[in-house]
Amino acid sequence: MNITLEKHSEAKVCGGVHQQFSFASACLNSQTRFAIFLPPQANESHKVPVLYWLSGLTCTDENFMQKAGAMKRAAELGMAIVAPDTSPRGEGVPDDPNGDYDFGLGAGFYLNATQPPWNTHYHMYDFIVNELPGVIEAHFPVTDERAISGHSMGGHGALSIALKNPHAYRSMSAFSPIANPTQVPWGKKAFTHYLGEDVTLWEAYDTCLLLKAYDMENTPVTPGLVDQGDADNFLEAQLSTPALQAVVNEKGYPMQIHMQPGYDHSYYFIASFIDKHLDFHAQHLGLTS
Amino acid sequence: MNITLEKHSEAKVCGGVHQQFSFASACLNSQTRFAIFLPPQANESHKVPVLYWLSGLTCTDENFMQKAGAMKRAAELGMAIVAPDTSPRGEGVPDDPNGDYDFGLGAGFYLNATQPPWNTHYHMYDFIVNELPGVIEAHFPVTDERAISGHSMGGHGALSIALKNPHAYRSMSAFSPIANPTQVPWGKKAFTHYLGEDVTLWEAYDTCLLLKAYDMENTPVTPGLVDQGDADNFLEAQLSTPALQAVVNEKGYPMQIHMQPGYDHSYYFIASFIDKHLDFHAQHLGLTS
Repeated sequence: MNITLEKHSEAKVCGGVHQQFSFASACLNSQTRFAIFLPPQANESHKVPVLYWLSGLTCTDENFMQKAGAMKRAAELGMAIVAPDTSPRGEGVPDDPNGDYDFGLGAGFYLNATQPPWNTHYHMYDFIVNELPGVIEAHFPVTDERAISGHSMGGHGALSIALKNPHAYRSMSAFSPIANPTQVPWGKKAFTHYLGEDVTLWEAYDTCLLLKAYDMENTPVTPGLVDQGDADNFLEAQLSTPALQAVVNEKGYPMQIHMQPGYDHSYYFIASFIDKHLDFHAQHLGLTS
Repeated sequence: MNITLEKHSEAKVCGGVHQQFSFASACLNSQTRFAIFLPPQANESHKVPVLYWLSGLTCTDENFMQKAGAMKRAAELGMAIVAPDTSPRGEGVPDDPNGDYDFGLGAGFYLNATQPPWNTHYHMYDFIVNELPGVIEAHFPVTDERAISGHSMGGHGALSIALKNPHAYRSMSAFSPIANPTQVPWGKKAFTHYLGEDVTLWEAYDTCLLLKAYDMENTPVTPGLVDQGDADNFLEAQLSTPALQAVVNEKGYPMQIHMQPGYDHSYYFIASFIDKHLDFHAQHLGLTS
């Protein structure tokens, strides 16, 4: 692949290395930056599997790597982690007209926008599913064994992308996902702008609706894990965990959903349970510490 | 103590709780904010020991708690962590006239300023040694068993404060400390402004000079641990690790100094070795996981 990566930073962490790169994304029609953690096991003669981490509203490639405390366990397990940005960025990329945090920059919602002016750049779905793993697998000592996880908007992204691509990921997980975006304010706002008024077109990006329509007999299932704090301020209005639990139960889909007493929506919640998620993905990626 | 704490945030983390409070500090003649992590073992009937963490230049009470990944191990060990701000703040607190990062706000250097206008507020030494532990021990389920650690400017603070108060801390540690501040640009600038031109008055806040003058026969020693990355951009010009190693060797002071190949000055370095430091302090605080 004739893509040039520009390195922005490099630091040794937990025996491995954390780096940030940018490149010209064809999908996003802009430069885009991502972060990668390569564990100490990764080298020219030993490739490692990759966990793709999708962050939530307002985040960049940095928040998870700085705040989740994930790299120690990933280093023990021999797992790479890739954290992309949450939207296209840069000159000419339109933002929410009011500058709100929940739409536009930092809020790409991991879909392909069809409505102008958003459809020129906002193709985070294609970026995550196709372009980014192609770049990662061409440039770093990693295999094509992938897992996917994320938080909030990124939890929506991780689950919906894994459900729409049943052969692509060994496992999927989420913290506090927006599980039923067609029914909540964050999702309705974003989907109206990115996808238009026709709500039937929104269904393709809604985890609960994707699960409801899942053909359990003829499609491989991707094992899933969800953690949700019960003191999360967004739980009732935005996250729809009970609806997710109901459809998982109805379908018998292999997704564990764990309510965690007292935890909120912050990175402190992620840091509290990230090792459990890494261990879950490691098991499905065939890694043991 | 008639001090009123105002709570700014609270979040459950790793089974314990992270909180931020502010209060009117007599020492600092200003409001000041601190963060505290209480492990799950701490309650009305079980008090836990405290590690005081002193952060580096530009930091507040937030950086360490968000980026070091310390709370998981502290929760396992049953250790509280208190992270104060790095300087006085607020209306009327003077800052570097040029707005530089290495002096004034965010750069209190853990000393008592004697020179105007700094001597009205910049008394971080008294704050850390006396006022803060008094407030913590009066308001939270903690013992008076204390350990102290820090990074860079905060490593200077942790080591110099422990050496000047040989009965106060069970153990001391530092990441990338400014070990010989009287000899380097960061220290010379700060000490000139805070303490005046008389360099003999600077010696009271210089770890290497405090160690050199240490009365090993008649004063209790505080076990120490230092980690330093050898790819740290500040190592040569600001940190003086070889001078620290030399005086430790000369005196036979019980301080382990570990050079870590490839690591830089960032929180990624701290996150890589924080568990080792917590274990070191736990051992001297009589905790076992």
